[in-house]
Amino acid sequence: MNTFSYQQLYEFTYNILLKIGCSETDAKIATEVLLSADLRGVDSHGVARLSGYVRLWEKGRINATPNVHVSYETPSTAVVDGDGGLGLVVAPFAMQVAIEKAKNAGTGWVSVKNSNHYGIAGYHAMMALEHDMIGLSLTNASPLVSPTFSKERMLGTNPISVAIPADKQPPFVADMATTTAANGKLEILQRKEMDAPLGWVQDADGIQTTDANGVKKGGALLPLGGDREHGSHKGYILGSVVDIFSAVLSGANYGPWVPPFVAFLEPDPNPVGKGLGHFFGAMRVDAFRPANEFKTHMDNWISRFRAAKPIEGHDKVLIPGDPERELETERMSNGIPLIKPVEDDLRALGLKFGVEL
Amino acid sequence: MNTFSYQQLYEFTYNILLKIGCSETDAKIATEVLLSADLRGVDSHGVARLSGYVRLWEKGRINATPNVHVSYETPSTAVVDGDGGLGLVVAPFAMQVAIEKAKNAGTGWVSVKNSNHYGIAGYHAMMALEHDMIGLSLTNASPLVSPTFSKERMLGTNPISVAIPADKQPPFVADMATTTAANGKLEILQRKEMDAPLGWVQDADGIQTTDANGVKKGGALLPLGGDREHGSHKGYILGSVVDIFSAVLSGANYGPWVPPFVAFLEPDPNPVGKGLGHFFGAMRVDAFRPANEFKTHMDNWISRFRAAKPIEGHDKVLIPGDPERELETERMSNGIPLIKPVEDDLRALGLKFGVEL
Repeated sequence: MNTFSYQQLYEFTYNILLKIGCSETDAKIATEVLLSADLRGVDSHGVARLSGYVRLWEKGRINATPNVHVSYETPSTAVVDGDGGLGLVVAPFAMQVAIEKAKNAGTGWVSVKNSNHYGIAGYHAMMALEHDMIGLSLTNASPLVSPTFSKERMLGTNPISVAIPADKQPPFVADMATTTAANGKLEILQRKEMDAPLGWVQDADGIQTTDANGVKKGGALLPLGGDREHGSHKGYILGSVVDIFSAVLSGANYGPWVPPFVAFLEPDPNPVGKGLGHFFGAMRVDAFRPANEFKTHMDNWISRFRAAKPIEGHDKVLIPGDPERELETERMSNGIPLIKPVEDDLRALGLKFGVEL
Repeated sequence: MNTFSYQQLYEFTYNILLKIGCSETDAKIATEVLLSADLRGVDSHGVARLSGYVRLWEKGRINATPNVHVSYETPSTAVVDGDGGLGLVVAPFAMQVAIEKAKNAGTGWVSVKNSNHYGIAGYHAMMALEHDMIGLSLTNASPLVSPTFSKERMLGTNPISVAIPADKQPPFVADMATTTAANGKLEILQRKEMDAPLGWVQDADGIQTTDANGVKKGGALLPLGGDREHGSHKGYILGSVVDIFSAVLSGANYGPWVPPFVAFLEPDPNPVGKGLGHFFGAMRVDAFRPANEFKTHMDNWISRFRAAKPIEGHDKVLIPGDPERELETERMSNGIPLIKPVEDDLRALGLKFGVEL
């Protein structure tokens, strides 16, 4: 496995995006969003996906020069039309709208239609932090998950990210798929030819399986909880709420109609909306109490939870965002390791567009 | 097990609440909230808790004549001070504030301090439905749950409820504890002297146990997911977000400082806030798109999910709220069954206050 510096991967990604016709501004933000995944250790959502975005563009399913705009608004809400652009560009635009709304109304809530996959949910939620706001970021995604009692793929891994500012402590940053395990974790097991734990995947008949390739064989990812006895209906609820907020509110496609990320699968010929959908929220903490009071109590919350008595064999209790932040520091200094197939894929992409890695 | 009509239990609860000094208006709404739990099958949160509330009042920890008021606000937010009142009274007040905010600003978000347990989360979220709004209801609660890798009780079962209106279909109504199983489910197993599935409870050392009495013996409930491999850090995230929105935003107690519901346990002598906290949201669907468009697509969402291919042995896929709605209709006609200990408890309470059941 070779390691690349952040700057190397940044230049490469940025130049590829220019080659497909993105503006400099759009290429810059999209690169930043994409690479934040690699830095934070969500390798499945970073440069590994670059060629996938390019293939969608080649198929005419991504608009490299979109007119991203607010199509409807009230004092605390807006709908953003992504005009078929990269989610990596549309999402930061929409989150910024939410932040501006919050400056005036206390909170801002933006539902997005006509978009594409937006990288890691956490990047967008974290945009709120520097404004002393709580950030929320949700998105629907291509259907891979079956509701409790079903064998049909109806929902994406539909993540929820919440970022909450603190004072001296680092912020609370949660970013979680609403399935037991994200698809990226399965891909790791597939490469290592290892089994998956029960509770992650079901087969085509809806029976739990340890086959890490179960989804590819017509099965589905399981909602958080795994089975009914362990609360899979709650994961199903969470994924559904993400879907409805992201797409039924905005006018995007929902449930099984969400267009596939992979270019070799065609979108449903009878869509129920436009593209895929996201949902963003920004809440000024001083719309509730003075910001310094809030942040001092968040410090206290965080340090108290860090100090919770650990189970034997574990050092300490983690705060959401701890592992990703540590990895970000480490990878910014020491570089980002890429597995061979991803490196090969990027080099082929570079060759095609005349961009050197 | 004897069965009582809704009207019988309503009269009884209402009169007990008058006896402890509630106004007629407050007694009415509190009774309605409490009994909505019995109707919807959340028996642990209904009349079974009435004597618990009364004991807290006897200890001076519930104010029967509170001055519930908005203590801070912006166009889309407010903080409500519950003045130590029954959560059953404070929560509907706060949700109404959220609804009024939404009428003007598109959305309303209310964090509540100085309150007590508020019954079922779903009641309050559902208040939004008749206004063509999406309702959100969260609350923190007495610590019973350990974060991933911890053996200390740091969080309550901190539920999340989301209610979403539809047109011809019944609404989507989710109401879920952020633990694998709600405490009420354990109580049922305890009464039947049955074991709990692994993934629900850990013992005092933080080891998973099938002992349904594990929590009483110094253990803890497990966050949704059960263990790290099955995503318990996601349940921990959800419970934490509920805690922070409910209490760090409002100025209530959070985490291990949340006052216990049982009167025989004293609250922490050094609180970090006032009482316990809730969080409510209301979003006008027409702050995003015309209400009829939204509701037509919700109908389509719901009917498509109902039609998802079921696993063999299961009739159909359920929509959140289906089981509770069916039970509500059934119990409104045929009455509410009470287990013997609850009936005895209510009769003793009636005897004490001169109210007949």
